[in-house]
Amino acid sequence: MEASPKPAIVLVRPQLGQNIGKAARAMLNFGLTEMRIVAPRDGWPNPDAGPSASGADIVLERARVFDTVKQAVADCSAIYASTVRRRDLVMPVLSPEAMAKEIASSSAPSCILFGPERSGLETEDVALAKAIVTVPINPDFGSLNLAQAVILLAYEWSKRSELAVPPDKPLEPVAPHGELEGLIGQLDEALVEKGYFHPPSRTEATRNTLRTIFTKSGWSSREVKAVRGVIRALMGPERRRD
Amino acid sequence: MEASPKPAIVLVRPQLGQNIGKAARAMLNFGLTEMRIVAPRDGWPNPDAGPSASGADIVLERARVFDTVKQAVADCSAIYASTVRRRDLVMPVLSPEAMAKEIASSSAPSCILFGPERSGLETEDVALAKAIVTVPINPDFGSLNLAQAVILLAYEWSKRSELAVPPDKPLEPVAPHGELEGLIGQLDEALVEKGYFHPPSRTEATRNTLRTIFTKSGWSSREVKAVRGVIRALMGPERRRD
Repeated sequence: MEASPKPAIVLVRPQLGQNIGKAARAMLNFGLTEMRIVAPRDGWPNPDAGPSASGADIVLERARVFDTVKQAVADCSAIYASTVRRRDLVMPVLSPEAMAKEIASSSAPSCILFGPERSGLETEDVALAKAIVTVPINPDFGSLNLAQAVILLAYEWSKRSELAVPPDKPLEPVAPHGELEGLIGQLDEALVEKGYFHPPSRTEATRNTLRTIFTKSGWSSREVKAVRGVIRALMGPERRRD
Repeated sequence: MEASPKPAIVLVRPQLGQNIGKAARAMLNFGLTEMRIVAPRDGWPNPDAGPSASGADIVLERARVFDTVKQAVADCSAIYASTVRRRDLVMPVLSPEAMAKEIASSSAPSCILFGPERSGLETEDVALAKAIVTVPINPDFGSLNLAQAVILLAYEWSKRSELAVPPDKPLEPVAPHGELEGLIGQLDEALVEKGYFHPPSRTEATRNTLRTIFTKSGWSSREVKAVRGVIRALMGPERRRD
């Protein structure tokens, strides 16, 4: 039986090198080694990261840098967004435990997004995910920093990591996120052509709704292809059957 | 039934004021407010503590200082020592979860001891406890600092307390199957019109594939409606946006 893959930790537009180092340390304490960094404010490598990693240099050395979140998650089929609940998005909200359970029971490549220190994830970043993961904290004092959020989720993951029993072997695996983006992009173009996004003030919200709809679908690569064929067919001219 | 009292956090001979502040912040995130400090190296109050507490000042203000660990834990009946396993002591070793469960199921006042940053708890400190609590970490890279150890144990405790209520807002329920049938029927008609089902010998298989695709999507009523709108839009004439 195949073990479930470890989640990648994706730091989205992190500001301080120090915090990247601390996140690496937090990860390695619980056996996570794959860090991805999206558009770090101060570039990469960052000389402040190493000293804060307290020996977790291997995580920093192997870290990969991406320009966009979409590129960073293109090979992941289960994407989680670490953030507080969002009023602007209708999405599942999981506890760290529930997320860990999902990751451990699946053979799909997964990752967890963490936003910039000050502002957190943007709506468009969160909309890429299949679920939000929220650490339930004191409603009167919520002050988790980046490395603390990373360590709590890494810790929860580690508790499940040995239990990994992927039951979904016979099912088709969920398509990598890049394929879903292809579908969403195709649909978006088609809808623009048809004048679907109207009025312009609602366009962003409508796009987010559609993104959520397709991201939660759990479709396999084969199914994504089929839906793309459906969109092409719907856009084409009418044809009589012979 | 009486609620179980919150555990006190006992920092034994902490070195840096900064770390005391970070520990306070970690505590308050998960609703713990009682800090006890034993023989802080740099005295108390410590001007470095406040800035690191990021607003958790109330924990620092209420912190009580003791000369010895024994004095600090005198009113506690369940004492836990946060440390790695000790070869020199024959004591129960609990996971954070098991400790949290014990604390939550007892009405006895409890506390958790944390040692100095560099050296950890002395044997004689640990010997005061009923059990050791150890966070299972990466055997090849164990590097938990004081505030991280505090936050992980505070988090586990909070999961057993009332903060632990699972995400409250129910997700949108999955649409009743009839609505899905409406969507599938609409799509089928549209695809027939476009001559999508071809050759006829494959029609049944293609229909089954599409049915599976939409049945597994987990869409809510709202989302089914949105997809139906998308299909209508794709079928419609091209429109220029004004």
